[in-house]
Amino acid sequence: MTTLLEGKDILRTDTLTDEELDVILSTAARFEAQLEDEGRLDNMAGQVMAAMFFEPSTRTRLSFESAMHRLGGDVITIADPKTSSAAKGESMADAVKVVQGYADVIVMRHPRKGSAAEAAAAVSIPVINGGDGAGQHPTQALLDTYTIKKEKGTLDGLTVALAGDLKNGRTVHSLVYLLARFDVRLIFVSPAQLKMPGHITEDLVDQGVDVTETDDLAAAMRESDVVYMTRIQKERFDDPEEYERLKGSYVLDMPMVEQAKDGITIMHPLPRVNEIKEEVDAYAGAAYFRQAHNGVPVRMALLALVTGRE
Amino acid sequence: MTTLLEGKDILRTDTLTDEELDVILSTAARFEAQLEDEGRLDNMAGQVMAAMFFEPSTRTRLSFESAMHRLGGDVITIADPKTSSAAKGESMADAVKVVQGYADVIVMRHPRKGSAAEAAAAVSIPVINGGDGAGQHPTQALLDTYTIKKEKGTLDGLTVALAGDLKNGRTVHSLVYLLARFDVRLIFVSPAQLKMPGHITEDLVDQGVDVTETDDLAAAMRESDVVYMTRIQKERFDDPEEYERLKGSYVLDMPMVEQAKDGITIMHPLPRVNEIKEEVDAYAGAAYFRQAHNGVPVRMALLALVTGRE
Amino acid sequence: MTTLLEGKDILRTDTLTDEELDVILSTAARFEAQLEDEGRLDNMAGQVMAAMFFEPSTRTRLSFESAMHRLGGDVITIADPKTSSAAKGESMADAVKVVQGYADVIVMRHPRKGSAAEAAAAVSIPVINGGDGAGQHPTQALLDTYTIKKEKGTLDGLTVALAGDLKNGRTVHSLVYLLARFDVRLIFVSPAQLKMPGHITEDLVDQGVDVTETDDLAAAMRESDVVYMTRIQKERFDDPEEYERLKGSYVLDMPMVEQAKDGITIMHPLPRVNEIKEEVDAYAGAAYFRQAHNGVPVRMALLALVTGRE
Repeated sequence: MTTLLEGKDILRTDTLTDEELDVILSTAARFEAQLEDEGRLDNMAGQVMAAMFFEPSTRTRLSFESAMHRLGGDVITIADPKTSSAAKGESMADAVKVVQGYADVIVMRHPRKGSAAEAAAAVSIPVINGGDGAGQHPTQALLDTYTIKKEKGTLDGLTVALAGDLKNGRTVHSLVYLLARFDVRLIFVSPAQLKMPGHITEDLVDQGVDVTETDDLAAAMRESDVVYMTRIQKERFDDPEEYERLKGSYVLDMPMVEQAKDGITIMHPLPRVNEIKEEVDAYAGAAYFRQAHNGVPVRMALLALVTGRE
Repeated sequence: MTTLLEGKDILRTDTLTDEELDVILSTAARFEAQLEDEGRLDNMAGQVMAAMFFEPSTRTRLSFESAMHRLGGDVITIADPKTSSAAKGESMADAVKVVQGYADVIVMRHPRKGSAAEAAAAVSIPVINGGDGAGQHPTQALLDTYTIKKEKGTLDGLTVALAGDLKNGRTVHSLVYLLARFDVRLIFVSPAQLKMPGHITEDLVDQGVDVTETDDLAAAMRESDVVYMTRIQKERFDDPEEYERLKGSYVLDMPMVEQAKDGITIMHPLPRVNEIKEEVDAYAGAAYFRQAHNGVPVRMALLALVTGRE
Repeated sequence: MTTLLEGKDILRTDTLTDEELDVILSTAARFEAQLEDEGRLDNMAGQVMAAMFFEPSTRTRLSFESAMHRLGGDVITIADPKTSSAAKGESMADAVKVVQGYADVIVMRHPRKGSAAEAAAAVSIPVINGGDGAGQHPTQALLDTYTIKKEKGTLDGLTVALAGDLKNGRTVHSLVYLLARFDVRLIFVSPAQLKMPGHITEDLVDQGVDVTETDDLAAAMRESDVVYMTRIQKERFDDPEEYERLKGSYVLDMPMVEQAKDGITIMHPLPRVNEIKEEVDAYAGAAYFRQAHNGVPVRMALLALVTGRE
């Protein structure tokens, strides 16, 4: 019997069915419990995962590699694009066609939007998108959703604020489409220059999601159960003074947490530079490191599901 | 009982006995069948392979690493020479003497001809040459031979054309000595500037091989059961115009395939840049990706044989 | 029952108790014997070691990775700081806090003194210091001590000469504090500019160790059971001529070995550049490659002890 996601690629979040999303989240929860009880699983013993990182991403790579090892599987890795055959002029499609003979599943990170779909079309083994430039980062959005569910017990009925650079943030774009499947209220908090793209906001409203836009982080946090911070990067501003003026208002510190809604959960995809002060780390609702750690069970679920080893 | 290749180094193809070649090819075929049936082997469980790549080679490295994992073994890797102790002035001999204490077998790639033999002389564990500059690349030649046998059923009675840069191609130099052990006819197809070195052609003729030289790829393909393409690199030409004039005639496209001998098998060591058009990939006899994949069972056979785990 | 070092960090040598030192050395000896008998151990099956090398160190990294594999465990690795999230401005503390969710033990190399202690304070899983800049390199000192014991049967009653750059050598600084726990006599051999720091020599004398200082290597070797060579680096000298004049007297060759105390053991942390001539390698007491190989059982012992898998 073929299971739900067996043989499928994980390229984006918007094409996942509700049933697929549900099986991913529940498999991740089951694996996490099993890891705690039994220490190790062997679902993927004898299997090989190829981590093809045409762009460095330590966190995503190590988290996938750990997930594969926790399932009893092995890993082959291209961590540095400069030492790969791409440097010799090989096309990405040729590279993945070769590697499919070495592995049972490919995890790919690539700077070009659409590259993951291209890779998936070129090979017959499952491809998991570990981030394709300005495109998608589905496994991050899935672990974010898993984290909210785990921290809050449910997603339904929550108000979630997403703050910072909502214009360029691949992560938040993938995430809001997942959140829209639940009964959530969304608050988009950003400077005017870095607003969520209009077509995304419209999509969400069309789907019946209650969306508010503001540039007042403190106000948003007073109404939110979860605040998801992202980085505001200097290079996104034409006027450096504008950046200097704005960045301060998107730095989360303890006084802001104290005035926020009771028990607010604070998330961040990491790495953070200065968006959340270190003093916040000790706050019980500071979930960003737990969020990073949730990458392991969620990626275990994805690896096992697409290879039929769940 | 010690098996045939136990404790031996794999440094070049011309010193392999016919019996050794035979056991490598048959062990590879057996491993490939076992992998298909059982999914995994554990011949090398508990063993460690050191991949020492003093020069990057993603394909060869990943293929060896996958082979080791498919045998149940573990891998330690130097993928980037810039972060190795060679950068601190250590000799290659010292480096391998240290690593022999960490591993059961060493796979080495090094830009200097003769380096693999030096390494083998310095240590007591088996060394497999993963390419030593202008020297040899025996595992590539072995997987090429394995591929022809698998694609055609036998090597005897075949006509094999080798095309492109036959002067500088380490791969074809290692390969022709293996092919010469079978009842094959060889056609060397290259521009005059990039002919097979005279001493190799003479060696082959002395061994009784039927060798023809030509610069007409289309004509050669009309008589060949197998055509093995290699890249013509611009930097090999003194006169860039000469390169521009010639390169087109060594680009394999579908019209050429259609006029070739029926069922011709097309091979390439990869990566290709533009020597074979992508339109050819769909042709049933386009074997170059299967050829790359054959690197896994052939390297499994070599690893298991030299460590006595076959 | 919690074993002696379970859950502890290995950050420096001077805070280890005698009992802890003893259990490390005896566990290493037991693992080494078991490896020889059984080929493999599975103490750490299902566990993951994170090798975080913010500064390259091939030897230390491969030796730890091999140790983890010999215990049946798996490894995730940051080998190249340029591709790590540190390049995106992430603090080292954040980096290890993330990685603790991916692994059961962290081995860290970092160019900044004190960084290993900082990392250990940030996470709840054990941290092993693989060298922190001008700070400590405890696992090297432990394997050096293990080597002397193995080569000589005991440390008590020995005269050990340490030669070369004693001023800047992190390794010898960590080592002398370990040796001081045994009944050894120490001879420090160096040019005046590169003498052992006064506070260390005073510490040792205060502890009752018999310490002699000299610049005459040949004389020291006539009285020593062990000579530990280190490199004299040109960049440590203000006056290049002074360097040229001195370096020759700290190059160990066979005539010097022949005039040394009978059976003298020669050690070096490697890589060597020219401090020991290659002609010495064939001498039975040349222990530097065996010393490097001892890194595996000693690091196996540390990994298993701190994770409670001994």
